[in-house]
Amino acid sequence: MRRSPLPPSLRRVVENLSTLPGIGEKTATRLALAILRWPQQKAKELGRSIAVLHERVNLCSQCFTFSEADPCDICTDPKRDPSVICVVEDPGDIVAIERAGVFRGVYHVLHGAISPMDGIGPEELKIKELLERIDRGAGTDSPVKEVILANSSTAAGEVTASFLSDCLSGKGITVTRIACGIPMGMDIKYADPITLKQAMILRNTVK
Amino acid sequence: MRRSPLPPSLRRVVENLSTLPGIGEKTATRLALAILRWPQQKAKELGRSIAVLHERVNLCSQCFTFSEADPCDICTDPKRDPSVICVVEDPGDIVAIERAGVFRGVYHVLHGAISPMDGIGPEELKIKELLERIDRGAGTDSPVKEVILANSSTAAGEVTASFLSDCLSGKGITVTRIACGIPMGMDIKYADPITLKQAMILRNTVK
Repeated sequence: MRRSPLPPSLRRVVENLSTLPGIGEKTATRLALAILRWPQQKAKELGRSIAVLHERVNLCSQCFTFSEADPCDICTDPKRDPSVICVVEDPGDIVAIERAGVFRGVYHVLHGAISPMDGIGPEELKIKELLERIDRGAGTDSPVKEVILANSSTAAGEVTASFLSDCLSGKGITVTRIACGIPMGMDIKYADPITLKQAMILRNTVK
Repeated sequence: MRRSPLPPSLRRVVENLSTLPGIGEKTATRLALAILRWPQQKAKELGRSIAVLHERVNLCSQCFTFSEADPCDICTDPKRDPSVICVVEDPGDIVAIERAGVFRGVYHVLHGAISPMDGIGPEELKIKELLERIDRGAGTDSPVKEVILANSSTAAGEVTASFLSDCLSGKGITVTRIACGIPMGMDIKYADPITLKQAMILRNTVK
């Protein structure tokens, strides 16, 4: 039996694409065939934009998000409040929070969550850098007043949030955690039991 | 409000990726961030493999699938039976059929299906080329004996199959259509009503 009826250069794109998270061989094949149907210039543009990505993008030395400038656009934006730091796991979380359009402070990207099973301890994350950043601000005009822990509501995220909250205690700053509960617009009967349990425990007084 | 917190070169990759079928802005952002987490060499390799795709891959002049060689590897394989042609809409369909591992004949790729609403008539497809291919084989040692219509079970696919079957009548070849029915392993109660209706109409005698 022939292993794959695809020509080698197409197979190469399929193999490369299928190492992306959530992209299996079937999806990769579908995408590669779609690229082949594009005009050649469009495919070249996609290819080049990916190839040069690492040369252009680095980590912001302050908040550790992906950025071309250092510090990044959010860290240097005079309209943002540097006294409120929102701690997130990934740069992708910043995209989601910015889309919500409610937060006017700055960020700190941990680049992951504590997960001993995967060999990820606090040292592997940008936690030391967060504590140093807070200490640096302590004596200045703009000390950090609040740290919002926007870690994911996963086991690893909760462990990380709890670890951070211990690290931050005694620094005289407010430490908050984003709310957990039923998503807006969701029918109660479709909520998963763990979320529903949390939503019941964390219920708010209405009046 | 800031429009996007992503640096320009990352936004460029997101915009390019999100023009792929089934890839929205959120998925594109997730993929672009994943590529940025890769080692630089791996991203360069993916980018290059996409950029050179069109230079390497062309259509096979016999069956019109994507191929680096002309004719393609399947058309020139002496173990394949050129007297049985399986007609498909897309090169991706060949991948699926080869995966099933049951077909030993050759293929003919139409590159679409008849769809007047989208301005796609028979002239836009490789139908003329199929008829010429069959006529070319007629006087030789290896005439085409069977054409399997493996068009999709969509409205456009059925129209195309029906059109082809008219074109092929009177050529003295067997014209077959792949079976339509309940997928293997599927519980009857989850089958959609249209498939179920077809499966009832096309029922086979067991003994």
